[in-house]
Amino acid sequence: MKTSTIGPEIERLIQLLARLPGLGPRSARRAALHLMKRRESLLEPLARATAEAAAAVKVCSVCGNVDTRDPCSVCTDPRRDPATLVVVEDVGDLWALERAGATRGRYHVLGGTLSPLDGIGPDDLSIAPLVARVAAGGIDEVILAVNATVEGQTTAHYITDQLAGTAARVTRLAHGVPVGGELDYLDDGTLAAAMRSRTPF
Amino acid sequence: MKTSTIGPEIERLIQLLARLPGLGPRSARRAALHLMKRRESLLEPLARATAEAAAAVKVCSVCGNVDTRDPCSVCTDPRRDPATLVVVEDVGDLWALERAGATRGRYHVLGGTLSPLDGIGPDDLSIAPLVARVAAGGIDEVILAVNATVEGQTTAHYITDQLAGTAARVTRLAHGVPVGGELDYLDDGTLAAAMRSRTPF
Repeated sequence: MKTSTIGPEIERLIQLLARLPGLGPRSARRAALHLMKRRESLLEPLARATAEAAAAVKVCSVCGNVDTRDPCSVCTDPRRDPATLVVVEDVGDLWALERAGATRGRYHVLGGTLSPLDGIGPDDLSIAPLVARVAAGGIDEVILAVNATVEGQTTAHYITDQLAGTAARVTRLAHGVPVGGELDYLDDGTLAAAMRSRTPF
Repeated sequence: MKTSTIGPEIERLIQLLARLPGLGPRSARRAALHLMKRRESLLEPLARATAEAAAAVKVCSVCGNVDTRDPCSVCTDPRRDPATLVVVEDVGDLWALERAGATRGRYHVLGGTLSPLDGIGPDDLSIAPLVARVAAGGIDEVILAVNATVEGQTTAHYITDQLAGTAARVTRLAHGVPVGGELDYLDDGTLAAAMRSRTPF
């Protein structure tokens, strides 16, 4: 019934859109319809943009960032501090830190976290390249900007061990009350961490 | 800051994805990243699918459906009942009725509802073509499958007036308790309508 009333090109578009995070089968149909009703203003530009992105996208061979050049624009930016290396799990985290303007350092993308249950060990992540990068010298501080999850913290501990022989100082992001956060809604662990790490007012 | 660390092709892709219903700026970034990490399995296929859809999509000149041919596959399907015409607001409603297999009739897409506040009058909708279609004869029943909103019902009343001179019988979808719905969560209007339209058990 379905396939008889929708052309195969449309069906294919819906299927691919449904694989985007945040879109399910129903919202993918809505999105496809939205696109098709705006062929000139949205569908054709999106066709061009996806093709251009597919042709242009590269993974940075230095840090693992996704960009249109390799090395990426962060690694090649002379204004970035080469002595500070911020380790993140994923490119999305790198982008989040960039949006926040949180650091002038450079990055290293791990590509995930250690997760023995999922069969993800050190060799599946970009940990050896990280150690090699730090061992090559010139890096004073390695900031472990991993998620405050069990997997993230496990990975942070593992990396700290691996970097023990190098000259770099290893730090991690502070735990505490999110800016704008209300105490009443915070979990006990965050409240306890914020209390332990209290600072002079 | 943002634009310096993301290539223009990526930025453009994010902007276009953010215009899809269901995706905001943040989820568009996630979606773009998701695509770029899966260049061969997702980004390139999506580039092809959007280009093919953009080339293939047509609006049916008979009913207003979006399909890859004109007249669309519903209008050209000989198994459909030409004597029953189902009037819907939007192509999405047509697709929903098709998924449900709710009718063997043909369709007429209005392209919206009357909304004087938004400046949408009868001439902005496909109402004159609908009247012409019905006046041409061969249609026994016009089913007004518009939304049960004030705008939808206003539009239904207007169309009923316009069709008064034709031979077709005008009906509307039943109001009642949704299948699987719980009475406790239903609004008073629906409950009252379901009670009025009660049927023998």
